Amino acid sequence: MQQGVPGPNDDVRMRGFAKRHTVSEALAWLDAQLGCLSAEEVRLSSAAGRVLADSVASDFDVPGFDRATMDGYAVFASSTEGASSYNRLPLAVVGDSMPGRPFEGSVAAGEAVRIMTGAPIPQGVDSVLAAEWVELEGDHISALASVSPGKNIGKRGEDIVRGTPLFEAGRVLRPQDLGVLSSIGRGSVSVIRRPRVRLVITGNELLPTGTPPRGFEIADANGPMLAALADRDGGEVLFPELVRDNPAAILEALQTDADIILVSGGSSVGVEDVAPTLVAEHGELAIHGIAMRPSSPTGLGRLGDRIVLLLPGNPVSSLCAYDFFAGRAIRALGGRSKEWPYRKVSGRLNRKISSPIGRLDYARVKLQDGFVEPLAVAGASLLSSTTRADGFVIIGDDSEGFAAGAEVDVWLYG
Amino acid sequence: MQQGVPGPNDDVRMRGFAKRHTVSEALAWLDAQLGCLSAEEVRLSSAAGRVLADSVASDFDVPGFDRATMDGYAVFASSTEGASSYNRLPLAVVGDSMPGRPFEGSVAAGEAVRIMTGAPIPQGVDSVLAAEWVELEGDHISALASVSPGKNIGKRGEDIVRGTPLFEAGRVLRPQDLGVLSSIGRGSVSVIRRPRVRLVITGNELLPTGTPPRGFEIADANGPMLAALADRDGGEVLFPELVRDNPAAILEALQTDADIILVSGGSSVGVEDVAPTLVAEHGELAIHGIAMRPSSPTGLGRLGDRIVLLLPGNPVSSLCAYDFFAGRAIRALGGRSKEWPYRKVSGRLNRKISSPIGRLDYARVKLQDGFVEPLAVAGASLLSSTTRADGFVIIGDDSEGFAAGAEVDVWLYG
Repeated sequence: MQQGVPGPNDDVRMRGFAKRHTVSEALAWLDAQLGCLSAEEVRLSSAAGRVLADSVASDFDVPGFDRATMDGYAVFASSTEGASSYNRLPLAVVGDSMPGRPFEGSVAAGEAVRIMTGAPIPQGVDSVLAAEWVELEGDHISALASVSPGKNIGKRGEDIVRGTPLFEAGRVLRPQDLGVLSSIGRGSVSVIRRPRVRLVITGNELLPTGTPPRGFEIADANGPMLAALADRDGGEVLFPELVRDNPAAILEALQTDADIILVSGGSSVGVEDVAPTLVAEHGELAIHGIAMRPSSPTGLGRLGDRIVLLLPGNPVSSLCAYDFFAGRAIRALGGRSKEWPYRKVSGRLNRKISSPIGRLDYARVKLQDGFVEPLAVAGASLLSSTTRADGFVIIGDDSEGFAAGAEVDVWLYG
Repeated sequence: MQQGVPGPNDDVRMRGFAKRHTVSEALAWLDAQLGCLSAEEVRLSSAAGRVLADSVASDFDVPGFDRATMDGYAVFASSTEGASSYNRLPLAVVGDSMPGRPFEGSVAAGEAVRIMTGAPIPQGVDSVLAAEWVELEGDHISALASVSPGKNIGKRGEDIVRGTPLFEAGRVLRPQDLGVLSSIGRGSVSVIRRPRVRLVITGNELLPTGTPPRGFEIADANGPMLAALADRDGGEVLFPELVRDNPAAILEALQTDADIILVSGGSSVGVEDVAPTLVAEHGELAIHGIAMRPSSPTGLGRLGDRIVLLLPGNPVSSLCAYDFFAGRAIRALGGRSKEWPYRKVSGRLNRKISSPIGRLDYARVKLQDGFVEPLAVAGASLLSSTTRADGFVIIGDDSEGFAAGAEVDVWLYG
């Protein structure tokens, strides 16, 4: 852009959007772009929280053998018939069965094999007499109780039967799922690849993170925030450095090998807002200008295989546009739920929130003394409002807002 | 341990715990050990989700200058007095103010500086006339509306005033917090160090993750599960390899330089359960045997500076003991909440759950058709029950359980 007085086109472009799309229109376009990415194999040690690409069944019975579920003595149940503390039945201990080290011999009536929890049941024997019902008497033991056949034995396959479907594709792997996968011999697992998210943080006034603000330059807030958000949503973040407000630099960044590109800043219709024009010229700018507050100067488009989201530079707008569009896209590409990862609670407003029909509002709120307290609804530049806030309330574009005392849903950032 | 018939001591030791501690007693002992660890400095790019060690205030006003909150023209408000579409007031455009590139000249009455959102307000000027109220006419612009002093100006410090406390120590850092920290010039931040968690997975019958089960050997399920749980709770996991059931190997592992040691397996009172004896001999075994199901053979103790938790080898017991004791300890050492990181919902049981007075039960449940369906309550070895489950219900040791139809709290694994 040039210093100097505006030309006629510039002036027109400073006037704002000719038309604003509804949030629903924007989401409908976006959702139509969001196919789940391909799979990759990862080691179990890094698979927690990843999304399973294929269903999993076991190739093995777990356990692969009958085992003791108590410490005690493996016996024929018939050898204990009638035993009680008044009728102690002697048993000869002929060996031990330990986990991984079975008793290899044979057991006859009147004999017992000392056995630990998890150890293999000796051949032929049909029950385990718990240790608490046994007393040592000289060189033998005595049964103080009878035991029924099958007692204290975990059968082969009691945990997992070979061939049983264990997990469906799309499951977000929990810690215990990794345990189960390991128990069926898996050392790695096929998961949806993480979407590569390129951050293109523009603004000639910006200093990189770690630089104190000075003069009329300000330190980049959006880069570290968007990086953490994209990481939380399962993205693999590419954020090499700040990008100057110049068409060649921005175009080069837009052509990064990535699945989704988030451009921060220069997303509106002003003379320095070059990204929308670049996307329109080199790809498709499907949505530009959305009837919401903050974040109305948001753009959605494509450039080749890449989804491109143009997010406003104001930090609160950036967060809101991330929450509505970017997070949804990253999660969906990675096979996750499009829904917000925020917990929803409900509460009563302590003052009204107004919003015009035809515009969706993203209102930061605090939870205070059991009430929902709206913070300043304006102030898209005030990122500290989102750190003071506990969450946000959405006022849909078909609503004029909520009266004081109304019950509202609050999405919690925490 | 030796193969062969049991000696008298062995026999007594197989009998079970002389006394079981209540869960409350165990938690009381554990909580008394849990001081928050020291701090470390980390870069913002890896600070999301970390726990702030010190409170943070800003050394700067943000922004450090008055700036435009709209695209438009910086003017003296008085130059627009009386302007309307029927009374267009001409203004001479004398320059531009762009973000990071202020207008350096002076502005007189009747003059205007074209200004972008975020750009510095020129010296002396008191308002910004939004672009939509301006029309280009030949070589000048006309104001179509008046603007009041201060309008569309964000004052220096409107986001953050120098010296204002921003974050309290103990805060878990959110994405937007990183944005705010960056905006005040911080490139790194002091956070509570992650607890080093050594996993000591014992069991001669165990094969390492990635090995198919064979014969009487089973693949380790607890290692990958506990590693993922400890990582989730903010721990730094040390898990070099499986440890043989032999006192020297276990003792060496117990002496690892770590903040907390989780021993899996051999936690009971059987002859192969050497870890409790080692902890008692070389440190303090404060709690051994807890009135809960599963996980009764759990031990809590110390060895030097290290908290040592002895978790049962059965995978469900391992998960339950992790949930009750290990997770709590790891979170607290790392400055986090002792509370479960699980979401709690309530629902109606579709069948009763019984549990004796004096014992706490951890019952896996499914949410099914709006009801809470208990899965098999027994079966501590059946890890697949925790992958089929959506969560768990706790039956306290003062309760005999819940009738069918009772409303219960469910803690969701998901």
